[in-house]
Amino acid sequence: MRYNIITLLIFCLSCSSPDTSSDNSDIKNESIIDSDPLPSWHDNKIKKDIISFVKNSVEEDSSGFIKEENRIATFDNDGTLWSEKPFYFQLFFALDRIKSLTKEEPELSNDTLVQKLLSENPKILSSLTHEDLIEIIMKTHSGMTTEEFEKIVSEWIRASKHPRFNKPFNEIIFQPMLELIDYLNDNNFKVYIVSGGGVEFMRPWVEETYGIPKEQVIGSSIKTRFGIIDQKPVLERLPEIDFINDKEGKPIAINRVIGKKPVFSAGNSDGDLQMMQWTDSNNESFILYVHHTDGKREWEYDRKSSVGRFDKALDIAKTNDWNIVDMKNDWKVIYPFKH
Amino acid sequence: MRYNIITLLIFCLSCSSPDTSSDNSDIKNESIIDSDPLPSWHDNKIKKDIISFVKNSVEEDSSGFIKEENRIATFDNDGTLWSEKPFYFQLFFALDRIKSLTKEEPELSNDTLVQKLLSENPKILSSLTHEDLIEIIMKTHSGMTTEEFEKIVSEWIRASKHPRFNKPFNEIIFQPMLELIDYLNDNNFKVYIVSGGGVEFMRPWVEETYGIPKEQVIGSSIKTRFGIIDQKPVLERLPEIDFINDKEGKPIAINRVIGKKPVFSAGNSDGDLQMMQWTDSNNESFILYVHHTDGKREWEYDRKSSVGRFDKALDIAKTNDWNIVDMKNDWKVIYPFKH
Repeated sequence: MRYNIITLLIFCLSCSSPDTSSDNSDIKNESIIDSDPLPSWHDNKIKKDIISFVKNSVEEDSSGFIKEENRIATFDNDGTLWSEKPFYFQLFFALDRIKSLTKEEPELSNDTLVQKLLSENPKILSSLTHEDLIEIIMKTHSGMTTEEFEKIVSEWIRASKHPRFNKPFNEIIFQPMLELIDYLNDNNFKVYIVSGGGVEFMRPWVEETYGIPKEQVIGSSIKTRFGIIDQKPVLERLPEIDFINDKEGKPIAINRVIGKKPVFSAGNSDGDLQMMQWTDSNNESFILYVHHTDGKREWEYDRKSSVGRFDKALDIAKTNDWNIVDMKNDWKVIYPFKH
Repeated sequence: MRYNIITLLIFCLSCSSPDTSSDNSDIKNESIIDSDPLPSWHDNKIKKDIISFVKNSVEEDSSGFIKEENRIATFDNDGTLWSEKPFYFQLFFALDRIKSLTKEEPELSNDTLVQKLLSENPKILSSLTHEDLIEIIMKTHSGMTTEEFEKIVSEWIRASKHPRFNKPFNEIIFQPMLELIDYLNDNNFKVYIVSGGGVEFMRPWVEETYGIPKEQVIGSSIKTRFGIIDQKPVLERLPEIDFINDKEGKPIAINRVIGKKPVFSAGNSDGDLQMMQWTDSNNESFILYVHHTDGKREWEYDRKSSVGRFDKALDIAKTNDWNIVDMKNDWKVIYPFKH
């Protein structure tokens, strides 16, 4: 799994106070121009390049024309569509699950690993191994049917809040990227989420949050087993990894699930690099890297971050002249609730 | 793999002469009534039930209304959308591949398994084991990039012909099912193929043949590996099974790829049973089983067939009062070229 224990520690260090500044005054003026599909984006080069790419892709006479059936766009989720600090939001879910599981089954609290997790002590947390983290995911994400898991996730996303913003996690999303998804949809691109996060963790809320159908989400998965229980067919979630949709896994899954090479890809980390290379090898393509440069409104991190590390891919993106969003300077607002 | 050596043997026994009868005279008359979405279906109960289900599913006031985002339809391919006799068409591809590989690499003909295959002698073929058949698929479907494989399949489907009808394999498809797919699409159902066949074997031709986008095809797969060769990213096809999309595999893959329970499923064999049960457990659903009852125009088989065996599922379908197409009596024509 991508989860690194450092991500847990950062939680205790990086919860800064919410941004109270507001710079959305000029959005309203600009969004009056109804021809502007990306009102939350400053009129910088990257916005112009996106619009130019999309316009060319739909104009039959353009050399950049892309047939409608080939307009496949793939977006990473963590750090690309929503924030990923202080650590991946799915880990908040796992920690909350451990807490509620311990209430249901008090004997769980005798488990050494569970005790470590519940301590919330940075020093103890730092002793967790990679195997421990896999075990956390297995403990919290399996042992129920797929329908039960969907219900658990749906309830969690409604009830839980991000500690910094005190908002539901699925509001800690990027307004400019929502506009980009709408713009692509309006131009008959089929937009997929291709994330390292769990596919069944994302599906219960993506349709409502991003307007992307459940069936256009690709993610990591655990194995399931089909069975008939009480005359009702069920899929039981097993404590076994099925597929890790990160790095090389992304083009492999894109090929297996979509079967077409994307023409547009957005990501923010080294984990997206192979998806970007795969997309870039298409005849017509647009690569968009989100660079987290805004420590005031969001977070500022890249090469040394334990979540969403953007290091090797940052060099390659610069060498290849890929489009890099400078969040601080390219985006007028970050979150919809700042509108 | 589902392939059974008996399927090879049947080839030598069951190639009857093409059907020269014509019963399409009344189609033209009926298709003049432009309100008939299924002109190749006789006006029997099953046609009326399909139309009634679809009409109810789109009418907001109906108790059978299904929200557009939940209108997921899943269709098996072999024996449901195209024929599967004398054996699965993908096995014709594999045998043709063995022949051409032997031309390219004459030393292959020293291989005992290849010698057996090329003999076309029923007795020798009958000695092939299940492991041999897996090896045939591995030999013929791996060792190239995904792009090279797509080209190989595309060329094969254009160049090869079914021995009975002397037509390309992707014309040996069921006209009534094409009309059904169109009808569902017209009513905003999202139609998927969920087949035991190889996903990358189907994708190169499904879009053109059925009007179903490549990304709406789910099938069996072999593993792939991402790599950069000559500065170009490629996916290499490895001689290793990734997923068998048959029986229990079908609901598992539907859940993983689509993430929604279908409301409409069509199949023809025991291999589709779990997909049917999964669909049937939805609140609103329509199960359609194609029963091969027409030995004159197509083939007549069910309980004892080595391909598309319809035995346990036939009993369950009857018990559950699922819809069973009697090809001989429910379909006016079978193939589009008989129009």
